[in-house]
Amino acid sequence: MLYQKEENMSLPNEPILTNPLSGFMELLPAEQMVFNKIFDTIRQSYEMFGFIPVDTPILERAEVLLTKVAGETEKQIYQFQKGDTNLAMRFDLTVPLARYVADKYGKLNFPFRRYAMGKVYRGERAQAGRFREFYQCDIDIIGDGELDIRFDAEIPSIIYMIFRKLGFEKFTIRINNRKILNGFFANLGISDKAVPVMQSIDSFEKIGDAGVRDELQKLELSAQVIDQIFSFIKLMGSCDDVISGLRNLNIQNSQFVDGVNELDKVSKLIKEFGVPTTNFILDLTIARGLDYYTGTVYETRLNEFPEVGSVCSGGRYDDLASHYTKQKLPGVGISIGLTRLFDQLYKKGVLKTGASSPTRVLILPMMDDLAPSLALATQLRNSGVATEVSFVEGKMKKRLGYADKLGIPYAIFIGENEIAKGLYTLKDLQTGEHVELSAEELVKKFQ
Amino acid sequence: MLYQKEENMSLPNEPILTNPLSGFMELLPAEQMVFNKIFDTIRQSYEMFGFIPVDTPILERAEVLLTKVAGETEKQIYQFQKGDTNLAMRFDLTVPLARYVADKYGKLNFPFRRYAMGKVYRGERAQAGRFREFYQCDIDIIGDGELDIRFDAEIPSIIYMIFRKLGFEKFTIRINNRKILNGFFANLGISDKAVPVMQSIDSFEKIGDAGVRDELQKLELSAQVIDQIFSFIKLMGSCDDVISGLRNLNIQNSQFVDGVNELDKVSKLIKEFGVPTTNFILDLTIARGLDYYTGTVYETRLNEFPEVGSVCSGGRYDDLASHYTKQKLPGVGISIGLTRLFDQLYKKGVLKTGASSPTRVLILPMMDDLAPSLALATQLRNSGVATEVSFVEGKMKKRLGYADKLGIPYAIFIGENEIAKGLYTLKDLQTGEHVELSAEELVKKFQ
Repeated sequence: MLYQKEENMSLPNEPILTNPLSGFMELLPAEQMVFNKIFDTIRQSYEMFGFIPVDTPILERAEVLLTKVAGETEKQIYQFQKGDTNLAMRFDLTVPLARYVADKYGKLNFPFRRYAMGKVYRGERAQAGRFREFYQCDIDIIGDGELDIRFDAEIPSIIYMIFRKLGFEKFTIRINNRKILNGFFANLGISDKAVPVMQSIDSFEKIGDAGVRDELQKLELSAQVIDQIFSFIKLMGSCDDVISGLRNLNIQNSQFVDGVNELDKVSKLIKEFGVPTTNFILDLTIARGLDYYTGTVYETRLNEFPEVGSVCSGGRYDDLASHYTKQKLPGVGISIGLTRLFDQLYKKGVLKTGASSPTRVLILPMMDDLAPSLALATQLRNSGVATEVSFVEGKMKKRLGYADKLGIPYAIFIGENEIAKGLYTLKDLQTGEHVELSAEELVKKFQ
Repeated sequence: MLYQKEENMSLPNEPILTNPLSGFMELLPAEQMVFNKIFDTIRQSYEMFGFIPVDTPILERAEVLLTKVAGETEKQIYQFQKGDTNLAMRFDLTVPLARYVADKYGKLNFPFRRYAMGKVYRGERAQAGRFREFYQCDIDIIGDGELDIRFDAEIPSIIYMIFRKLGFEKFTIRINNRKILNGFFANLGISDKAVPVMQSIDSFEKIGDAGVRDELQKLELSAQVIDQIFSFIKLMGSCDDVISGLRNLNIQNSQFVDGVNELDKVSKLIKEFGVPTTNFILDLTIARGLDYYTGTVYETRLNEFPEVGSVCSGGRYDDLASHYTKQKLPGVGISIGLTRLFDQLYKKGVLKTGASSPTRVLILPMMDDLAPSLALATQLRNSGVATEVSFVEGKMKKRLGYADKLGIPYAIFIGENEIAKGLYTLKDLQTGEHVELSAEELVKKFQ
């Protein structure tokens, strides 16, 4: 019983703020309908590829989440104590997956294909377009000891299906391999500076040639090394062009050679997976983070909205759960930051809102006896047609106004005459057209 | 960038606990598949009745949540400070709805039919069957100033659809009206003891006649009053029997009379809404909490599992959001505590797990060229058939073992011969039967 009796309840002196907290998205019905449609499309696509749903708690032992983070990052995590337990709210879906797989290792089948779609929390500085509560939509394929490279090639075909289903045509999946980057830097003798160099080239699209050159000079790299980096990241064109360009560098470093072979294999397979060459490229500037990924990496950009940045990213990692288990669990996965994606596309007007309700038919009884209206509503619902019966008293105009405001497309009028004839008047509320149909014909029309 | 580079990472000295926190449900894949199926059934049923999705944040300003709670209850709420803000995790979906409607009042259409399905948090004492994180699945219909009584009658038809779709036949929706209880107690001159008396009679099923009589005596009620209470709560039988029994009490209290008229109207309408009389009864012992509900109240029990208690409860309230707005917002709603429902039914063996994966077809390439396998997989997925392609190397027995463990029902073998003939071998993995089908025939078979 959470509700307590309070006598003489009244509004407090200072009114309580009713808006959601800053950084927490809260949508109006028509917006939520669009959001849910995207959510469902992603979920269905993941399931079409045989990914298995896993739902882990939002609260974890703080020590579970903090094994992987430090410094500035730790401050972003919502942490608190309850009783004797230090609790934290998950900041991604990967750390909970690692704990889950470590915990249930013996009961899972590998390769373990799991999807997770849920809210995660980061107490970042409030700023436009940044969220403190946001949905991540993740898939990962986890191997037991090993995981075939072909799974790396499968991932872009999943991204492709999702963004096509979401109505996009012009998007580019950018693919790279971290072994190539690591091997290339080792060959240049600048492995100790690999992290800042990768950060610089990762921001190539934002700061351009001059910006990258400037940053690299600050790292005290020689002009010759900088030139070599530039000739590397400028390798572009078809997959074959990039691969032969890389091979022509004649770098013998074994990581580099492995990476080029993997990227070659993956890029050839991606075509077999049905992704058109117009929707993916090899991009040697993609690095995706500092130490997590170890092989193939992915980013996805919407060509018409480059400023949105990557809308779906991920990659291959050697070992998912080294903090929690001694089992070696290599994997490959991607994540869609749905809240940010929705926010950006909605603000740009790319996503159009439609109806504010799932209802397709509003039945308007025009007689006291509700039974025929309710019976037809049940029949329609059982056929999968979302149906409401109007119980609000008042003039027909007011009752139809409700349907109009919600964007309900059809109304059915049921009165004495309709019952006598066994025919109901169906009105298309957009065109105003009327037809008279029997119950069976109505059900058929909506199926 | 949440992942930080850590050199010489190794397992910590004390291994980290990988099980979820006590009171937090975490399911294995086959269980999660069943859970999600129930979740989806509830969601679809809510949408069939035209309820609109609303997703509010899990974190709220503490002051928003705490307006409605006090004492013991407050201790259950997960609260903490981040920066200057006192935050709390929602403990139900009703308080956030009240804030939402108050905040967006001018942008919503009334009657506002909303559904919400999400996690809520209560830091209760750990005990079997009690959860600290659990899903609630709520609907509410909110009126602007007023709300027709017919909406009260619609609610049981929604409960009926859901539990029928979930495969139950023997369940009973119990209905009462708080005005009857309030009026009855006022008539007896025991309004000051209404709360403990209601608590006693609410536990009638658990503690029986003698238990209730014992508790009522402790409240220092006269033998005559206790007898009158018993003759009241023993009014049972058909709806007509109960209503005429109530009228025969000849109580003139206006609340009582209003309540009886409402209950009469609601019970008559429920039949028109298509709920069989075998699935609902009037039960004058149902009170549902202390001060929140003001009219019709509902409970739902599974006849074969009375010990589970109510699986879907709710009622009518006069004013949703009095703490946040001066608008009068009457409503009626119900909630399904899905996590507890799942847990109880699963432990009783009522819910059977099946496959551990959504995959319906595993394609097994038996040649190096993957293209034909991948093309068929794409074709099947585009037709709505969840399909995996096996990339794991090894003997056929091992590869089929994966399908067997996951409960994937079908396998398709694709080798040189199959390509030459244009026919693929489809194997039913349960019966072992083989058929040879063209791609088109395969797609048709699964649709």
